[in-house]
Amino acid sequence: MTSESNDIRKGLVGVLADKSAVSTVGKKDIGLTYRGYRIEDLAKECSFEEVMFLLMRGHLPSASELRALKQRLVKARHLPNELKVALEQLPATAHPMDVLRTGCSVLGTLEPEEVDNVKMTKDHEPLLRIAERLTGSFGPMILYWYHYHVSGVRLDVDSFLEDDDSLSQVFLKLLFRQSEKPDPLHNKVVDTSYILYAEHDFAASTFASRVTASTMSDAYSCIATAIGTLRGNLHGGANEAVMHLLEPLKDTQEGQQMVDQKLKNKEVIMGFGHRIYKNGDPRNAVFKDLSRELSKRPEGKPALYAISEHVEKLMEERKWMYANADFYAASAYHQCGIPTYLFTPLFVVARTSGWVAHIVEQRSANKIIRPSSHYVGPQERDMPSTFVRSKL
Amino acid sequence: MTSESNDIRKGLVGVLADKSAVSTVGKKDIGLTYRGYRIEDLAKECSFEEVMFLLMRGHLPSASELRALKQRLVKARHLPNELKVALEQLPATAHPMDVLRTGCSVLGTLEPEEVDNVKMTKDHEPLLRIAERLTGSFGPMILYWYHYHVSGVRLDVDSFLEDDDSLSQVFLKLLFRQSEKPDPLHNKVVDTSYILYAEHDFAASTFASRVTASTMSDAYSCIATAIGTLRGNLHGGANEAVMHLLEPLKDTQEGQQMVDQKLKNKEVIMGFGHRIYKNGDPRNAVFKDLSRELSKRPEGKPALYAISEHVEKLMEERKWMYANADFYAASAYHQCGIPTYLFTPLFVVARTSGWVAHIVEQRSANKIIRPSSHYVGPQERDMPSTFVRSKL
Ligand SMILES: CC(C)(COP(=O)(O)OP(=O)(O)OC[C@H]1O[C@@H](n2cnc3c(N)ncnc32)[C@H](O)[C@@H]1OP(=O)(O)O)[C@@H](O)C(=O)NCCC(=O)NCCS
Ligand SMILES: CC(C)(COP(=O)(O)OP(=O)(O)OC[C@H]1O[C@@H](n2cnc3c(N)ncnc32)[C@H](O)[C@@H]1OP(=O)(O)O)[C@@H](O)C(=O)NCCC(=O)NCCS
Repeated sequence: MTSESNDIRKGLVGVLADKSAVSTVGKKDIGLTYRGYRIEDLAKECSFEEVMFLLMRGHLPSASELRALKQRLVKARHLPNELKVALEQLPATAHPMDVLRTGCSVLGTLEPEEVDNVKMTKDHEPLLRIAERLTGSFGPMILYWYHYHVSGVRLDVDSFLEDDDSLSQVFLKLLFRQSEKPDPLHNKVVDTSYILYAEHDFAASTFASRVTASTMSDAYSCIATAIGTLRGNLHGGANEAVMHLLEPLKDTQEGQQMVDQKLKNKEVIMGFGHRIYKNGDPRNAVFKDLSRELSKRPEGKPALYAISEHVEKLMEERKWMYANADFYAASAYHQCGIPTYLFTPLFVVARTSGWVAHIVEQRSANKIIRPSSHYVGPQERDMPSTFVRSKL
Repeated sequence: MTSESNDIRKGLVGVLADKSAVSTVGKKDIGLTYRGYRIEDLAKECSFEEVMFLLMRGHLPSASELRALKQRLVKARHLPNELKVALEQLPATAHPMDVLRTGCSVLGTLEPEEVDNVKMTKDHEPLLRIAERLTGSFGPMILYWYHYHVSGVRLDVDSFLEDDDSLSQVFLKLLFRQSEKPDPLHNKVVDTSYILYAEHDFAASTFASRVTASTMSDAYSCIATAIGTLRGNLHGGANEAVMHLLEPLKDTQEGQQMVDQKLKNKEVIMGFGHRIYKNGDPRNAVFKDLSRELSKRPEGKPALYAISEHVEKLMEERKWMYANADFYAASAYHQCGIPTYLFTPLFVVARTSGWVAHIVEQRSANKIIRPSSHYVGPQERDMPSTFVRSKL
């Protein structure tokens, strides 16, 4: 080991990669806050649209600011025809996260951001408008593709929606193709999940997005990076992975066997652990309450909830590991009738606000993000004498 | 300033983010090497396909390994119909990097990578095959879209190509829609540029791609991240930006005025500077030789070359700043008749090899890349008493 190799910061654990004013995650004596407000308060008192405004613009909206944002979000539901045709090319077997990554990328060619290094560091309004456009269109986008394959129809977004529908209502109405307002508890679950998922400091997807922003790339490239990074099951993809883990289990005993088995094989159990939170994730309590509330209704799944709770208890006892936000998100979404493979796309709708808040920060005081490596490859060497030298 | 704020590693300057065995960049007493071989030797003696094999698989190919790779690259030229239809939806005004980002994303839905956390850390062959597929199809992809708009035809890739065409030949033949072999010097320029551009350690696009890989996301997400990050004009987009800078200049005097003006305004001059190289970029000499050679031919652009050289000299004299790889890449590509907005896509064809070599490393010894931030936002605060509490 050279002295240099001692300095390797693998995973960038604990490296302060920059300043940030968006949120606090796991800071001593403060919990999770967005722009200073506690996540528990935001989850209880706000609609997602208010939180979205807060993250993107730094303060809670006034009544008229909120009205104007909602009007922009109504326009943002519209899917251009070229985008629809492109979505129809993506097969039924595609992963929905790949559909959203593609949809974002296509929209970036149809409604591109003007790239001007000087303007981009000063005027963030064009970027924020693109973020609103994406946030408003991601739901319709994924559900257009979904119904094209699953229901065999070309979804006519407008025929189900009212101007005062919130983003969570839009998602649920379009998912079930209904014009009536969705079940209030289902709506609360989706809206609250959006708030809980909206921002989390330098999470991998956000940090990757800041690296993309640091080369002065456009907004859509930054968000496509973030979607592709969120997709992995060590990150946003965990909510889907948790459901795949829990769904086959019939009772708490099978839950216990699953945990035993995985721990014995030294496999990771999805929905547990976190780089920053080592004593629990403050979002967990909120998701857990929602999941419990759903499980108590006639159509709820009390066994699923009971198994989840049992797995949570075992992980705490055996590994001192705590459930993260994704663990109860799974059973909550499932009990709202949302197909498992659409869980992570919901995360995208929410986190776009956090991503863009960070892209604004990155652009405002940019320095290209370019670390170094500790080289462990072969020594400098000559070309082998047997080499054909095709070019000479 | 708290003690914590002194530890901020903005831009991750000098941070050793991980080990790597792929290349050396700016290491004392060694120049730029790929897997131990000097870039000057590789540029002189290899074809790009050999370098691609070297980067991806760690050793130079035998004759039969090279033959097999070339056969796979012939198959990789094929564009599925769904991809063509999707490309046709992207407008003529789109940026070609957005077209490639989209094409990569679409292919990821048509020919997805199987995501299995255990297999992905052990068997890299599926990933390498996807990288070959993308490398072989990026040229046809961008030129399909290009000719659809510029020439008004649906490019029939196969009607121009032979099985023994190299990647550089494929690009030039399809660009000019010709079945004859391209001009040997043009071909040498493109092939050599591919070698020079193929790998550069933890450059921003590569590092972003490693962050995406670190969540256990799929290969296409990683490469889409890399494309979106390369797009920025502080990174790969610089070769295009250099051409926009040089093209309007008539003579060395105008070159001098441009430099004076920009330095006075404290503007960055594209094609100069580098995070790691502070005394010059070893790739510059090779690109410069190619550009000079082209400028001496009857159809060459000696004024463009002379202006470039003058700007280079001024930057050295006035700012001790050296040209990077992108500076003479611009005049070299331009003199081959390549449209300016296709410069950075050529970089993509090349760098995919480097990106994937790093994704292999990341997967082989993965730890999620998740740094921390130094919080400078508002103190913890209560919800304002005027707030409407829409949810209560
Ligand atoms: C979130 C996560 C990626 C954090 O990674 P990290 O900060 O690098 O944490 P580490 O991998 O260093 O974890 C420390 C130890 O706990 C173990 N561990 C971490 N998460 C675990 C889990 N979910 N189940 C079982 N063991 C786990 C690790 O194997 C490691 O053990 P070791 O020291 O014997 O190697 C990781 O906890 C994980 O993979 N969790 C499951 C996926 C998930 O739920 N992601 C969503 C996060 S919101
Ligand atoms: C490549 C680049 C992003 C490296 O960034 P970096 O490592 O963060 O370097 P810095 O921005 O700290 O540069 C140090 C100083 O040189 C100046 N500088 C850097 N590149 C410059 C350029 N191309 N023209 C004029 N001044 C330049 C910076 O303004 C800075 O000045 P300051 O100390 O007065 O603020 C930067 O040099 C650049 O923007 N170059 C132009 C784009 C380009 O060619 N990119 C392709 C790279 S292969």
